Amino acid sequence: MAKVKLHESAKELIRSGALGHLVTIGSDGAPQVTCVWVGVDGDDLFTGHLNHRQRKLENVRQDPRVALSFEGTEVQPPGLRQYLVVHGRAEIEEGGAPELLQELAHVYLGPEVKFPPMEDPPPGVRLRITVERVGGTGPWAE
Amino acid sequence: MAKVKLHESAKELIRSGALGHLVTIGSDGAPQVTCVWVGVDGDDLFTGHLNHRQRKLENVRQDPRVALSFEGTEVQPPGLRQYLVVHGRAEIEEGGAPELLQELAHVYLGPEVKFPPMEDPPPGVRLRITVERVGGTGPWAE
Repeated sequence: MAKVKLHESAKELIRSGALGHLVTIGSDGAPQVTCVWVGVDGDDLFTGHLNHRQRKLENVRQDPRVALSFEGTEVQPPGLRQYLVVHGRAEIEEGGAPELLQELAHVYLGPEVKFPPMEDPPPGVRLRITVERVGGTGPWAE
Repeated sequence: MAKVKLHESAKELIRSGALGHLVTIGSDGAPQVTCVWVGVDGDDLFTGHLNHRQRKLENVRQDPRVALSFEGTEVQPPGLRQYLVVHGRAEIEEGGAPELLQELAHVYLGPEVKFPPMEDPPPGVRLRITVERVGGTGPWAE
C-alpha cells in the first residue's frame, strides 16, 4: 500500500503529547495493545524501546502491520471525542532509543525531565512507522 | 481461553467515561481501530452500534478476537500514564443499541443528553466482550 502524508493537524496532536495506543499482531493473529510515547519526523512516526525483547517488537518482526490511535481534545457532533487512527507498517531500527525517549520525555513529562532515569541506558531499538491509512474523526481524517 | 474477572478499578475507570480504543482484525489479518463508548455489565463489556454494517462488526463476525484500551488519569513512575488493556472475544447481540447508547451518553456526554439524537433509531446491535486477559499499567493490572 502506498505511503500517505500526515495532515498537519495530526502531527500537531501527536506533538502535543497525546498518548499512542500501539496495536501489533501476535503470532496467533490476535491483537496486542500497549500505550507508548510517539514522535513525528517528516511523515513517519517513531517509538523508542530500551528493552528490545518486548512482545510488541517480536510481533513486528513477524508482521509489520500496526495501528496507532490517539485521543483528540475536541468533541465532535453528535458527541464522540475526536480521535486519530494511523494504520501503517513498522520497521525496527537498532539503537537510538535513549535519545528519542529523552526528546519525547520533554513533550510527555516536562521540559526539565531526565529520561531514561538510569545511567548508561542500553541503546534499545526504535520503531519507524510508515503511514498507509489515516482514520478516526477530526480534521486529520477529512 | 478462560474468562477472567475484571478488577473493580478497571470497572471504575470505564464507568468514569474513559474512551475505549476498540481493535478488531480485518479479513487480511491487519488491525482496525475505532474509538467507542463502553459499558460494563458484570464482568463483560458492551458497545452499541446503530449501523450494523460497519467494518468492525464485519471483522468480529469473521474473527471474534478484540482488544479494548483505555487511558487512566494517573501517571505511574517512571512516567507513563496508566492505561488499561482488555483482550477478549466479542459476540454480536441483535438490537438494544439505542437503549445502551442512551445509557452511555449519560456517562460520556452528560446527565441531560438525549442520544441517539434522531427519532426512531434502528435497533442496531451490541457487542458483548468477554474478557480473557487484562494488561496495561495500573491497579487493574496487578
